[in-house]
Amino acid sequence: MTTAAAGADDFRDALIRHGLLIPMGVDGLYGRSGVFEDVVERFNALVTAAGQRDRAEVMRFPPALNRRHFEESGYLESFPQLAGTVHSFTGGEADHRALLKRVAAGEDWTAGQTATGVVMTPAACYPIYPTLAARGPLPAEGALVDVYSYCFRHEPSLDPARMQLFRMREYVRIGTPEQVTAFRSDWLERGEALMRSLGVPVTVDLANDPFFGRAGRMLAANQRDQGLKFELLIPITSADKPTACLSFNYHQDHFGLAWDLRTADGDLAHSACVGFGLERVALALFRHLGFDPQGWPAPVRSVLWG
Amino acid sequence: MTTAAAGADDFRDALIRHGLLIPMGVDGLYGRSGVFEDVVERFNALVTAAGQRDRAEVMRFPPALNRRHFEESGYLESFPQLAGTVHSFTGGEADHRALLKRVAAGEDWTAGQTATGVVMTPAACYPIYPTLAARGPLPAEGALVDVYSYCFRHEPSLDPARMQLFRMREYVRIGTPEQVTAFRSDWLERGEALMRSLGVPVTVDLANDPFFGRAGRMLAANQRDQGLKFELLIPITSADKPTACLSFNYHQDHFGLAWDLRTADGDLAHSACVGFGLERVALALFRHLGFDPQGWPAPVRSVLWG
Repeated sequence: MTTAAAGADDFRDALIRHGLLIPMGVDGLYGRSGVFEDVVERFNALVTAAGQRDRAEVMRFPPALNRRHFEESGYLESFPQLAGTVHSFTGGEADHRALLKRVAAGEDWTAGQTATGVVMTPAACYPIYPTLAARGPLPAEGALVDVYSYCFRHEPSLDPARMQLFRMREYVRIGTPEQVTAFRSDWLERGEALMRSLGVPVTVDLANDPFFGRAGRMLAANQRDQGLKFELLIPITSADKPTACLSFNYHQDHFGLAWDLRTADGDLAHSACVGFGLERVALALFRHLGFDPQGWPAPVRSVLWG
Repeated sequence: MTTAAAGADDFRDALIRHGLLIPMGVDGLYGRSGVFEDVVERFNALVTAAGQRDRAEVMRFPPALNRRHFEESGYLESFPQLAGTVHSFTGGEADHRALLKRVAAGEDWTAGQTATGVVMTPAACYPIYPTLAARGPLPAEGALVDVYSYCFRHEPSLDPARMQLFRMREYVRIGTPEQVTAFRSDWLERGEALMRSLGVPVTVDLANDPFFGRAGRMLAANQRDQGLKFELLIPITSADKPTACLSFNYHQDHFGLAWDLRTADGDLAHSACVGFGLERVALALFRHLGFDPQGWPAPVRSVLWG
């Protein structure tokens, strides 16, 4: 079913034509059909099954987090351009009348909005570190958490694999460097096997995050030099530039330091995560197996629908 | 298991102590445990089963919508105080350095954020009307849509039944006044039967939305006079003021007018919805049946877990 490389626009148009994505009039913002959602849910269940034996603690957070925790996380240092702060109207009746006049006149009415206590979640795992830190030092065996939420990144794009709001499922290991690097090596293998069972072409490669500005280029180079980030890539909208569908990140003690999260021995906790981009995985399946899951190969259907 | 009325604070503390809700340091913002999520998912599946025979079109939207659609919706007229606009950093490297200085000094760094093209979803059904309008006039049988998303309302509260981010599942009927009022009457019965099958005490009552300001008091009175909104109420944090867990709303032609959405005969479309507050239903179950679902009565467990 794999067809020759098609551009992001063509693939986006086809997804919309087949009713899988619903355009919302903003680049990178889409509704999903029932068929699309079913694929997302089945893949998500597969990730649950693949992690079952580890008995991770399930935590589910809404798509926004505490602004103070967000400030402490260091995200603004590295990715200010991607963050989304949530603002509200706090005025009285006269302010309200003025606001409605601006809306009616087609003028900007958002300047008077003031920041609330919440910021859009940039990656599913952000809320777990302050949560664990509030419990005190980790137990000797460390912690393993299962998270899943919508995430926001302000990068409007016509590439359907680069949405502004998308879902990320993660397993996150927090503990000693040995515990977390062993976890990441294990999931590099498990993740690749999982995706191969779905009949899509995968490669694994060293990667870096999109750090902001000139200083960011050094951070990115450093991240690559130290082998801190790997990605599992699948061609979706380009054969030359395959899309990261899973990522395997070793944060060292970045989050431990941000919240003084300690191991049982009193050292700063290290952390690592495996993150699944659920929309991207679904798009990869539609790209390689066809737009109608009923027609996908029987072995793949059996993996997903049992 | 029903105990005497306990305050919102006591119930919130108990939910946290039992690990069902995870405090995030912002009033009305919580993580959910795996047990809490399982109850939400099982109830959501029950809502799916209760609506199955109607073959609604499934649409799933992310937790934010197009800002232009939001402006057109009329939400700012009625509930400006509840809305959440999403803002981003769009500056260069010098702006970034200035921003980080303000963060480090504990000063407000959010004034320089500018509004993006998206606004938090205030109710799950908002994105569907412009979606349907883009398709042209409705077919003769009208439309029936199944939506589910996280919604945001800026009303920080210690009452766990009043979260800033919560999930709403809705069936929405769009068509002639006869089609949509018949749908609402039908769901008033179905919704009440569904909730009674879960062994919680319910009442149904006339209601109104929390319209803003003095003019809003007239809108609210008018909404009640016309019988446009009913709620299914369950005592959660107060016996005197039970909490709306389901709501049955007749919007008349409000959304039809906003997007010039027409019936097959060319009239402005009317709409009505039944909305399920998933966190509120879960909280009602924990309140009345106990904090551990393993101990819930067998008939209720059988309804939820089959």
